[in-house]
Amino acid sequence: MPAAGKDTVPAKRLPTLEDVAARAGVSRATASRVVNADPRVGNLARTAVQEAIEQLGYRPNRNARSLVRPEADSIAVVVPEAEQTVFSDPFFAALLAAITQSLADSPVQVLLAMGQPGNSQKIERYLRGGYTDGAIVVSHHKDDHIWQVLHATKLPAVYVGRPYAGDVGIPYVDVDNRAGGTLAAEHLISTGRRRIGTITGPLDMAASEDRMLGWQQALQQAGLAADLMEHGDFTASSGALAMQRLLNRVPELDGLFVASDLMAVSAIHELQAAGRRVPEEVAVVGFDNTQAAQLTRPPLTTVVNPVGALASTAVEMLLKLLGGSQVEERVILGTELIQRASA
Amino acid sequence: MPAAGKDTVPAKRLPTLEDVAARAGVSRATASRVVNADPRVGNLARTAVQEAIEQLGYRPNRNARSLVRPEADSIAVVVPEAEQTVFSDPFFAALLAAITQSLADSPVQVLLAMGQPGNSQKIERYLRGGYTDGAIVVSHHKDDHIWQVLHATKLPAVYVGRPYAGDVGIPYVDVDNRAGGTLAAEHLISTGRRRIGTITGPLDMAASEDRMLGWQQALQQAGLAADLMEHGDFTASSGALAMQRLLNRVPELDGLFVASDLMAVSAIHELQAAGRRVPEEVAVVGFDNTQAAQLTRPPLTTVVNPVGALASTAVEMLLKLLGGSQVEERVILGTELIQRASA
Repeated sequence: MPAAGKDTVPAKRLPTLEDVAARAGVSRATASRVVNADPRVGNLARTAVQEAIEQLGYRPNRNARSLVRPEADSIAVVVPEAEQTVFSDPFFAALLAAITQSLADSPVQVLLAMGQPGNSQKIERYLRGGYTDGAIVVSHHKDDHIWQVLHATKLPAVYVGRPYAGDVGIPYVDVDNRAGGTLAAEHLISTGRRRIGTITGPLDMAASEDRMLGWQQALQQAGLAADLMEHGDFTASSGALAMQRLLNRVPELDGLFVASDLMAVSAIHELQAAGRRVPEEVAVVGFDNTQAAQLTRPPLTTVVNPVGALASTAVEMLLKLLGGSQVEERVILGTELIQRASA
Repeated sequence: MPAAGKDTVPAKRLPTLEDVAARAGVSRATASRVVNADPRVGNLARTAVQEAIEQLGYRPNRNARSLVRPEADSIAVVVPEAEQTVFSDPFFAALLAAITQSLADSPVQVLLAMGQPGNSQKIERYLRGGYTDGAIVVSHHKDDHIWQVLHATKLPAVYVGRPYAGDVGIPYVDVDNRAGGTLAAEHLISTGRRRIGTITGPLDMAASEDRMLGWQQALQQAGLAADLMEHGDFTASSGALAMQRLLNRVPELDGLFVASDLMAVSAIHELQAAGRRVPEEVAVVGFDNTQAAQLTRPPLTTVVNPVGALASTAVEMLLKLLGGSQVEERVILGTELIQRASA
């Protein structure tokens, strides 16, 4: 855990109507009229006020609301993935249920905002509008610019998973994905495997990159080849296709770390369809520890993604930010390997 | 389709700050100050304005926004069901994907707001706050009072599925559930079945009631017993339990209409576990035509729930309301039976 002095995010003061008026060079009354769509304002003054609103990230709703409703009404869980992806990966359902559960005793409504990776314009527009009190961003990709919007609007926000862009001034909670990848590879090495591959998630996500780097590090330290790698995108079908490519390239594969349980289950089906026995011929380790890990045959050895703790920590951090308190810049949760029959 | 004169919902005028001031008996400037959290307002006037805001359903955000952002920024898809239910029933994923697809060319962000049946306080509070431009309500239960909030706030809204409370002044699109139940029962009768049961959805939902009534009507017209009925709640596990109860009560059952594919697949598993061959001994018809209907063994004969058309019609109606146009009070989509191997 980093030292508090260096790594805390200062509580942010929300820009006021006075700030807007000062920036625009108009009176508070004029600024108020623009915000309230009063027609008695000239075009020049209106434009100046609108620009100041944009520059300062002033959200009239929030300020107007602070009197009438002192408490937060909603938070948005932002997942820049398509509906099909979100609904088919049990990680999201579990995380969302845990976030809602963490807010069970509060009046805050949870909203799920989904989108397409690399096309977050709608979500950005929504967040910029100030219609929600805070955001928890999950499954962030490299080319999403949501963090810039959060930064500009000063909307209280927490990431689940390290933002790809690095230190963007928005706090986050993450599992130690790198340690998880290392745990998986070390387990495969300790059981005598020598040709150990990996199926990664999309490498425009920090979690995918970290899991892969942890796997690579363990193999390099053991003096083993660390280039038996194919990429998926966390969907079941991508796991199956990556498995086919990897088997074609490396028929002598004897160990495999797959960056999500959903892809791991598909990969095992592909191995079995290709006549390979799991774990006798190829040992497989997944990541997440979703319910599917227990139900598949053979049951999946996997690295725990502590969904409940990720959710409750993110909610706790966001509630602190909403209350004007400081939070740590990052919270990294430990992980462990659950050994079942697949490796 | 009903005549336009009688069955259209008039476009609603949003209450203005002037309306609030008039109701509260204060000047527009005072009302504006309250909305903008200006401290220079006495307690009496502040309380009067706050009460007027509540009574009129005035939403400061929306009015303030109308200048800065002329277009709708978001709509909420409201599903008063727990996350686990929403994520496990493919009907919701398909409907949500179709709603998002219908809005692909617009800048509107879709938000999913889930909750617990019978406890819609958080959702009501959120909708009352005016943070979204419109709502599509799905999976409405008898004891939800969301429609009252929509009515009071005049938020543009469309139901998917007939509101249980009946004519609540909010337009809706529905599939002809009653005709669907009749289609299912008539198909079972036409193939010689005589002891025909049903597993219903929860009877505090209009869709469940309508499907059951359609089934009942067909059996009564054919002079068959129409009381072989057990109730589920649309979850897979409830379908399995209802099947066990029905088999215990009616061992001679030879036909079955199940009100959703998800419950039908579970019911078939129960029948098979009890040693009954499907369709030879018990013919089973589902409802929805989800992907699971094709994948289960035997493939499921089922009634089509036209998810894509429900979604696109609801979006079209909501966009009209947002644009100030009138829409029909109800649109009822036809349905058909898809015959596969289970009946």
